[in-house]
Amino acid sequence: MTIETFPNPEPTRPYTITHVNPEFNSVCPKTGLPDFGTITLRYIPADTCIELKSLKYYYLAFRNEGIFYEAVTNKILDDLVAACNPKEMHVKSEWSTRGGIHSIIEVSWRADEQKSA
Amino acid sequence: MTIETFPNPEPTRPYTITHVNPEFNSVCPKTGLPDFGTITLRYIPADTCIELKSLKYYYLAFRNEGIFYEAVTNKILDDLVAACNPKEMHVKSEWSTRGGIHSIIEVSWRADEQKSA
Amino acid sequence: MTIETFPNPEPTRPYTITHVNPEFNSVCPKTGLPDFGTITLRYIPADTCIELKSLKYYYLAFRNEGIFYEAVTNKILDDLVAACNPKEMHVKSEWSTRGGIHSIIEVSWRADEQKSA
Amino acid sequence: MTIETFPNPEPTRPYTITHVNPEFNSVCPKTGLPDFGTITLRYIPADTCIELKSLKYYYLAFRNEGIFYEAVTNKILDDLVAACNPKEMHVKSEWSTRGGIHSIIEVSWRADEQKSA
Amino acid sequence: MTIETFPNPEPTRPYTITHVNPEFNSVCPKTGLPDFGTITLRYIPADTCIELKSLKYYYLAFRNEGIFYEAVTNKILDDLVAACNPKEMHVKSEWSTRGGIHSIIEVSWRADEQKSA
Amino acid sequence: MTIETFPNPEPTRPYTITHVNPEFNSVCPKTGLPDFGTITLRYIPADTCIELKSLKYYYLAFRNEGIFYEAVTNKILDDLVAACNPKEMHVKSEWSTRGGIHSIIEVSWRADEQKSA
Amino acid sequence: MTIETFPNPEPTRPYTITHVNPEFNSVCPKTGLPDFGTITLRYIPADTCIELKSLKYYYLAFRNEGIFYEAVTNKILDDLVAACNPKEMHVKSEWSTRGGIHSIIEVSWRADEQKSA
Amino acid sequence: MTIETFPNPEPTRPYTITHVNPEFNSVCPKTGLPDFGTITLRYIPADTCIELKSLKYYYLAFRNEGIFYEAVTNKILDDLVAACNPKEMHVKSEWSTRGGIHSIIEVSWRADEQKSA
Amino acid sequence: MTIETFPNPEPTRPYTITHVNPEFNSVCPKTGLPDFGTITLRYIPADTCIELKSLKYYYLAFRNEGIFYEAVTNKILDDLVAACNPKEMHVKSEWSTRGGIHSIIEVSWRADEQKSA
Amino acid sequence: MTIETFPNPEPTRPYTITHVNPEFNSVCPKTGLPDFGTITLRYIPADTCIELKSLKYYYLAFRNEGIFYEAVTNKILDDLVAACNPKEMHVKSEWSTRGGIHSIIEVSWRADEQKSA
Repeated sequence: MTIETFPNPEPTRPYTITHVNPEFNSVCPKTGLPDFGTITLRYIPADTCIELKSLKYYYLAFRNEGIFYEAVTNKILDDLVAACNPKEMHVKSEWSTRGGIHSIIEVSWRADEQKSA
Repeated sequence: MTIETFPNPEPTRPYTITHVNPEFNSVCPKTGLPDFGTITLRYIPADTCIELKSLKYYYLAFRNEGIFYEAVTNKILDDLVAACNPKEMHVKSEWSTRGGIHSIIEVSWRADEQKSA
Repeated sequence: MTIETFPNPEPTRPYTITHVNPEFNSVCPKTGLPDFGTITLRYIPADTCIELKSLKYYYLAFRNEGIFYEAVTNKILDDLVAACNPKEMHVKSEWSTRGGIHSIIEVSWRADEQKSA
Repeated sequence: MTIETFPNPEPTRPYTITHVNPEFNSVCPKTGLPDFGTITLRYIPADTCIELKSLKYYYLAFRNEGIFYEAVTNKILDDLVAACNPKEMHVKSEWSTRGGIHSIIEVSWRADEQKSA
Repeated sequence: MTIETFPNPEPTRPYTITHVNPEFNSVCPKTGLPDFGTITLRYIPADTCIELKSLKYYYLAFRNEGIFYEAVTNKILDDLVAACNPKEMHVKSEWSTRGGIHSIIEVSWRADEQKSA
Repeated sequence: MTIETFPNPEPTRPYTITHVNPEFNSVCPKTGLPDFGTITLRYIPADTCIELKSLKYYYLAFRNEGIFYEAVTNKILDDLVAACNPKEMHVKSEWSTRGGIHSIIEVSWRADEQKSA
Repeated sequence: MTIETFPNPEPTRPYTITHVNPEFNSVCPKTGLPDFGTITLRYIPADTCIELKSLKYYYLAFRNEGIFYEAVTNKILDDLVAACNPKEMHVKSEWSTRGGIHSIIEVSWRADEQKSA
Repeated sequence: MTIETFPNPEPTRPYTITHVNPEFNSVCPKTGLPDFGTITLRYIPADTCIELKSLKYYYLAFRNEGIFYEAVTNKILDDLVAACNPKEMHVKSEWSTRGGIHSIIEVSWRADEQKSA
Repeated sequence: MTIETFPNPEPTRPYTITHVNPEFNSVCPKTGLPDFGTITLRYIPADTCIELKSLKYYYLAFRNEGIFYEAVTNKILDDLVAACNPKEMHVKSEWSTRGGIHSIIEVSWRADEQKSA
Repeated sequence: MTIETFPNPEPTRPYTITHVNPEFNSVCPKTGLPDFGTITLRYIPADTCIELKSLKYYYLAFRNEGIFYEAVTNKILDDLVAACNPKEMHVKSEWSTRGGIHSIIEVSWRADEQKSA
């Protein structure tokens, strides 16, 4: 699944882009049942921005994939960082109730922390 | 489109003015369909304040303009900074759902960062 | 897909059972994209009640089926009436936004109207 | 478990008493896990009213009892009708999400329907 | 405690007056602790309307009175019917949580039902 | 204060028009202090509809007028019925808290009840 | 603007279809400024259902049309009744605040009332 | 208009007092129409606290005064600082929608900033 | 009125305890009328924790006491600090509307600030 | 009660996992009555993550245990820190109303604070 990008119209000014997808689906590897989540992507673009329609198709590709909450949230961050090489990115996934408990996973990435590491 | 201003009644005291417009319209350059957004403008005035009626007409001028979320939010910031030369300005645009995803763009500008740059 | 039932513990007293499923998925026959809906089932049982776990698996079977809002709502009513032969049944489906519009379909069935027809 | 009553202070005037208990617990007979519900009792008293503290202890007695949603709701109605012999009684139970679905059971009883039956 | 009234400005037209008091206090006769309630009074005036300030003082007189939910709601109805002789009156009392349960009492009175009785 | 009207574009079909004004002001005749209310006007037009701008100015004329809740609600109904001669009209006024109590007045008028009277 | 339809999958059973469009735009004939509304269409189909995408384009055609609230709501009803010939149809338009007042127009049509007229 | 004060019962301990007035009225200098606002005053008292009833009458004095949002918010701050000489004061005014836009003005004052200036 | 305490089960680990009482009553010293408030107590315990039932009775003792908002909030802080000698304590009181204005008082205390003073 | 864990899929990147359980039950040691709480667990995993199903059974084990709010919240933190050895953990318990008061306990733990101690 290719994530398309387009040139950032303001590459010198840091600003924040947030895309909220309340219709995310993956599959629980244990039960084989679908998991319903809301994915909130927030990032500061560098040279490129993520194209919205290809982001939607990227998310759709998880619909039948068996993967845990923690893993899928980190994978989305990794894939989207690789796709657009931002200054900073945060991914939050919020999941509907399973066994009476609902879960939230939050992952962050900053370009300057990578460079200094 | 001229944005009118009036003299700040308290130019020596930093304070915050917020104008929320839940009726913003522009056009998606890809589909030609209207995009519906809420624009929240927040700024600390210097010598002049933005006149509310001319702000409204400024926003109306985007109604049939084909422009992406990221570009229009940055353009509003640039135009309004140029119009009133504030100490600080923030523009947030929140957009209604497209393809199951809704988006938020947030841009900031500070006079003292410009001077030091 | 078999829908299991169990004997109504109070078959002589009319009472109402409601099951709300906010995690329904089917596929739009035009675009091939998933549709997200909430299905509210309300019925007055006669001799049997619908077993909750088999209801869940019944709903899951629509996850990859291409079917319109109007058709799927009527089909759920038909299938569930056939499964438990109730005194009365109502099915409401509420769908997330597509093209800026969100839709609700409501279908009802009453045993006594069938007999008089 | 005895449900205590006290004399209705206005036995000639029909009026409505509602007691809402958002802390009801019983046990699912299939899984052995606790079910969490809200019980809304609404009735028109005849000669006696249900004493609130004994109602609370009556509900507590279900805490470790294995019983289905439909059965427990009907049993509460039967027990409370027997305890206070009202003109009319309604019991609604609303249950927290299990397997992605949440359920509501509503049962009614009217003294005049009993007499005419 | 006298409840003052004033002449109904529109005695020939039936219309509805509602006064909501979210600051009602009485005392539980069993525990001696204060009960907190919201009293909603709704009536169709005949020749006189209830004066708002004297209504407030009427409610205040219950502040240290030991009285059950059911009794106080009926007493308020009786007192206010006697004070303004309306075409129709409804009193609803909603009480804050005691022992995990919260209660609502609703009483109605209609002049034409009295006459025909 | 003249209330302007315009010809009903659909005089043969009964339909409902609602105008909600959350910025109504009048003055309490007892205290001389302003009362803040929301006026909801709902009517079925006959030959004419109420023009929105003149309705706004009509409401503004009460801003410094000393008048009780009950009287002003009935007066608005009378004035607007006289202005547009509707098939049916309802006026509801909801008032902010005074002395811990908030009030709602609801008045209705139907052309056919007038004729039969 | 043609409104497309498709055959009702259940033409013998009366059921209800609701489409909510919170992104309606027309233009005020007096001021030339855009009006923002939410259109709620609810109907019982006879032989045909309204196709959702063509409904969206139908609504879009009002975007630059100068027309009053009352007229546009009645026109939508007339156009959609003509397009799908339903058993029953209701159109509600809710408009954002103008001059401190917000308005709601509700229009209904029933096939059986037409025939008897 | 004199704003009365009373001695701070805890002059040595910094603490925060907030008074929210959702019934503020002034007049737009351009249109002559009333503006409706909510004024939130928050301050840390020094030797004196603002008396609540005189604050109410102070606000009432703006009811017929023509003054812009920015000016009135700064004036309230100046007047109240002069009246009670606090350690710190914040005034926020939130205004109802005009021309589709609603506005918020926030002004702050700190005694220690004054002294160091 | 004695406020009872019990030994802190985790005296070495700083953690936060919050008790919210939405049923606080005192009396306005000016009007003699009851004031209704919500008291939010938040503290970090040192060696002892406040016992919940005795806290309730402590609050009840204010029910007929004439005392201003500012004074009662500071007095509660002083009394509870004296009772349990915490690391840190905050008291917030929120009051229902009087004369169209509602008020909030917030007071804080930190053990380490006392020692350094 | 054993709490199972699984290897953290991203052990080098700090990220946050939150599990909210609104169905927690323990028993009040004083009254023997059940307490109803919501437990919010938030942690930054190190090498292992807490398995969701075993977490659920761990919580269930408190259902008949007599333990105070403060003690149970600290015990959950201790047990879960021991089970997964995280970088950081927070436990918040929110309890339903008892005696008119509702309580919240918040406890935190950080691995780096332990090491430096």
